[in-house]
Amino acid sequence: MMFDDTICAPASPVGSAAIAVVRVSGPTAMDAVDKLVVFRRGTAAESKGFEVKFGVVPKVDDVLVSVYRAPHSYTGEDAAEIGCHASPYIVSVILQRLIRAGCRMAEPGEFTKRAFLNGKMDLAQAEAVADLIAADSQASHRLAFSQMKGGYSEEFRELRAQLVELASLVELELDFSEEEVEFADRSKLAGLLGQARARVEALKASYRVGNAVKSGVPVAIAGAPNSGKSTLLNALLREDRAIVSDIPGTTRDTVEETMVVEGVRYRFIDTAGLRESNDTIEKLGIERSIEKLRSACLVLAVLDATASPQENLASAKTISAELSPDQKVIWILNKCDIAPRDPAIVRENTPDLIRELHSLTGDTLRISALNGTGLDELEEAIADCGFGSTEGAVVTSARHYSALCEAADDLTRVSEALDKHLSGDLLAEDLRAAISTLGSIFGEITTDDLLGEIFSKFCIGK
Amino acid sequence: MMFDDTICAPASPVGSAAIAVVRVSGPTAMDAVDKLVVFRRGTAAESKGFEVKFGVVPKVDDVLVSVYRAPHSYTGEDAAEIGCHASPYIVSVILQRLIRAGCRMAEPGEFTKRAFLNGKMDLAQAEAVADLIAADSQASHRLAFSQMKGGYSEEFRELRAQLVELASLVELELDFSEEEVEFADRSKLAGLLGQARARVEALKASYRVGNAVKSGVPVAIAGAPNSGKSTLLNALLREDRAIVSDIPGTTRDTVEETMVVEGVRYRFIDTAGLRESNDTIEKLGIERSIEKLRSACLVLAVLDATASPQENLASAKTISAELSPDQKVIWILNKCDIAPRDPAIVRENTPDLIRELHSLTGDTLRISALNGTGLDELEEAIADCGFGSTEGAVVTSARHYSALCEAADDLTRVSEALDKHLSGDLLAEDLRAAISTLGSIFGEITTDDLLGEIFSKFCIGK
Repeated sequence: MMFDDTICAPASPVGSAAIAVVRVSGPTAMDAVDKLVVFRRGTAAESKGFEVKFGVVPKVDDVLVSVYRAPHSYTGEDAAEIGCHASPYIVSVILQRLIRAGCRMAEPGEFTKRAFLNGKMDLAQAEAVADLIAADSQASHRLAFSQMKGGYSEEFRELRAQLVELASLVELELDFSEEEVEFADRSKLAGLLGQARARVEALKASYRVGNAVKSGVPVAIAGAPNSGKSTLLNALLREDRAIVSDIPGTTRDTVEETMVVEGVRYRFIDTAGLRESNDTIEKLGIERSIEKLRSACLVLAVLDATASPQENLASAKTISAELSPDQKVIWILNKCDIAPRDPAIVRENTPDLIRELHSLTGDTLRISALNGTGLDELEEAIADCGFGSTEGAVVTSARHYSALCEAADDLTRVSEALDKHLSGDLLAEDLRAAISTLGSIFGEITTDDLLGEIFSKFCIGK
Repeated sequence: MMFDDTICAPASPVGSAAIAVVRVSGPTAMDAVDKLVVFRRGTAAESKGFEVKFGVVPKVDDVLVSVYRAPHSYTGEDAAEIGCHASPYIVSVILQRLIRAGCRMAEPGEFTKRAFLNGKMDLAQAEAVADLIAADSQASHRLAFSQMKGGYSEEFRELRAQLVELASLVELELDFSEEEVEFADRSKLAGLLGQARARVEALKASYRVGNAVKSGVPVAIAGAPNSGKSTLLNALLREDRAIVSDIPGTTRDTVEETMVVEGVRYRFIDTAGLRESNDTIEKLGIERSIEKLRSACLVLAVLDATASPQENLASAKTISAELSPDQKVIWILNKCDIAPRDPAIVRENTPDLIRELHSLTGDTLRISALNGTGLDELEEAIADCGFGSTEGAVVTSARHYSALCEAADDLTRVSEALDKHLSGDLLAEDLRAAISTLGSIFGEITTDDLLGEIFSKFCIGK
C-alpha cells in the first residue's frame, strides 16, 4: 500500500541545541527536498539512498540531508531526514518551505503508521516504538526493545497458529458432519485447546508485571503507625535524589516517589499506619492505605523492633490479611538501632508468639531507616523480586491485555462446548473469534478507528 | 592541527521525540562507532563518508549512522552522527558505551572549536553558529546566518588589508629614514587612514542596531501620565499573544513585553508618565523612565487627543529634550476615538501653538489604542524604521564591538601622529596594534583564554 501525499514534521525534541532533524516521507519527498535545498553536488532525486548530502537552504541554514529511497526507508517510501541547526526558528522556516513545496504536516505517529501499513513492521512492533521512546529505565526499555524487534509478536503468531490448527481439525469434523460421525479424536482437540488456554493465561498473567515495569512497579510501604514508614521512604531515596520525582496527582495523604533500583523504576507509596480505629477520618485513611496495599506489586511490610511481639504479631496479621498470592512481600524489622534485641532472647520469652510471627513473616530484614543500616540489603531484596528479569513475552499494553481477556473468554466457551459435546460449528465460531482477536494484536486485522487510537498517542515526527 | 582524542555528546535537544542525534568526532571515531554498532553491511571504518549506515546498538536501539571522513566533516576530523530514538534513557546508554569505547564527553562548543582550530571556519563564523541557534526572529537569524557564511568576516579582512597596505607605506618610509627624507606622499597616507577610520566608525555604529536586533529592539513607550501608554502596549500585543513573553528581571515599575513585527523582535517598555513633579517617589519613577527612553532604539511618543494643545506641546518638549539623533521616534496622537477633532479646526484656534507642536513632532499617527484604530499603521511605521533591513556587515557581538573601539583608538593615535608629523616608527606601532586587534575578530590571533570564553557559551554537542 502506498500513500499519494508527502508528509513532513520536526522529528527531534523542541529546543535550542546543535542539531535538529526534520523528517519528510512520501512519493514527492525527493522533489520537495530538492526544492528546499541547494545541494553542493547532484540532487536528492538522483541519489540511490543511504547517502548524506551537504547543501544550503537559501538564507536559512546549512543542512546535511540523509536520503532514503523506497522501499529501503523507515516508512517504506522515499524519505529524507534534514539535519539543521536546532533553532526553533530555523525548524519552523524549513517546515514552512516544505509545505510550500507540496508537503503537509504529519499527524502524530504518521511515519510509523505508514511503516505499519507499508508492511515494514507489525502493529505490536509499531506500538513498541512509542514505548521505547517513553521508556525511562533499563527494564521498561528492555521490554519495549524486545517487542519492537518482533520477538513478542512471534509469541502471538505461534499461539494463533495453534488455534488455526485446532480450527482446521474442527472444520475437518464439520466436513464429515453429514455422516453424523463425531471426529475420531476429540481428546486431541481438548489437549491442543488446553495448551492454547494455558498460554493465553500465562500471557494475561504477565501483564501485571509488564504493566508495573512499564509504568513503575508500585511498592506499598505498610505497617503500624509510627513504625517508621516515612523515614524508610526518605532513607531509600537517599542517594538517588537526582532521579527522584514527584508524581503529580497523588492524593495529599499518600506520598509517592519514584526511584530506579538496578534498572527497574519503582513507585514507592507511603501509606497511613494500619490499626484498628473508631475514628471516622482515620478509618477512611486506613481504607485508602489498604487499597494501595492491595494494588501494589510489592509490599514492604514494616514491623517495629521497639514494639512488643504482641503488637508486631497484630500488625503482621493485619497486613497478611490483605495480601494476595501474586504479590511479593518483604518483611522488615525497623528501628534496630534503638532496640537491637537478640531475637533468640525474645524467642525464649514468648516462644509460641515468636513462632506464630515467624510463620507469617519468615525471616525479617533487620534495618534502621534512621541511620541507614540494612538499606543496601533491602535494595538487594527489592532487586531480587525479579521485576527486572522477566523472561519470554511480557504483555505491557492495555490493548493487548484486553484482547487476551477476550480471547480467553472465547476459548472458555470452546472448552465448555467441547465438554458438552456440542457440534463443531458452534466450536468453530468461537475459535474464529479468538483467532481474529489474537490477530488484532499484531495487526492482521485492523480498523481505521483502532489505528487512529493507537497512533494518536505517538509524538509528532515518529 | 589535529587532536589526539575523540569526543562525543548528545547533539539534539533533550526530550522524548522521534529522533535524537549523538555526535562523535576524532581520530578513533570510526573505531568507537564500530564498537558501538553492529551494522547490517560493512563497518564505519570501511565507509568513504557521506554515507548513512543502518545498524543495531545491541539490546538498546536500531540506529542510522551518518559517517563523515576527515577532512570532509564539520570538525575536519573523522566524525559520525548516530540517529537513535529520542529517549533520554537510550541517549545516555549510547553515550556510556561510546565512553567505554574510548571517547570522552565533549565540552560545550568543542565540536565547533575543533572546526575553527582545524581551519574549517574562522572565529567570527564559529561565533555566528551559536548566534544562529539562539536567533528567534527573522532579523536576528539573518544577521547570524550572514556572519556564519563568512560575508561579515570578509568586511574585516578587507579593512585589515587596507591597514596592512597603510603599514607597508609607513615601513617604506622607515626604510628611507636614514636619508631623512619624509615619505613623498604623506597625504596619501592620510587619505587611506581616513577611509579606514570611517569604515571602523561605521562598523562601530552598526553595533547599536545589531545588538538591538540580536537581543530585541528596545522600544520605549513615552508620554504624559494617562495618555494611554499601557493601553497601547496591550493593544499592540493583541494578536500575537502566543509569541509574547515576559522578560524576567524587569523592575516592578516598568512593564516589558516582546513581540515580533515583520521578522524583528521588539522589546516594548511601558514607562511611567513624564511630567514635572515635586513628589520624591514619582520623581524617581520619572528618572527611571527617562533612562529607558534614552537607551531605547525607538521611542513611541504618545500625545493625548483629549488634552489641550498646550499640554501636548509641553509633553512633546519633555520627550524631545531627551531624544538623541540616532534614535528613531514615532509620534502618536492617542484617544482619537474620544476626541476625533479635526486638526484643521484646532489649527485655526491656536495656529502658532499648533505650528510649534508640528515642528517638533511632524505628522502624528492618529490612533485609538482602546478600539484598535490605527494600530496596523503603527506596526507598519515600526517596521519602516528599518531594523529588519540592515545592509552590509552589522556588528552584533560585544567582543567585536570592543575590538573595534580599541582599533579606533589606535587609529586616532596614528592620525594624530600623522598630523603632528611624528616619525614613521611611532605610526607603525599603533598601526600594527590596530591590525592585530582587527585580526582577533576573525581569529587570526587567539589565546586559549579567549577561545575558552567564546566556546563555553555554546551548547553541548555543538
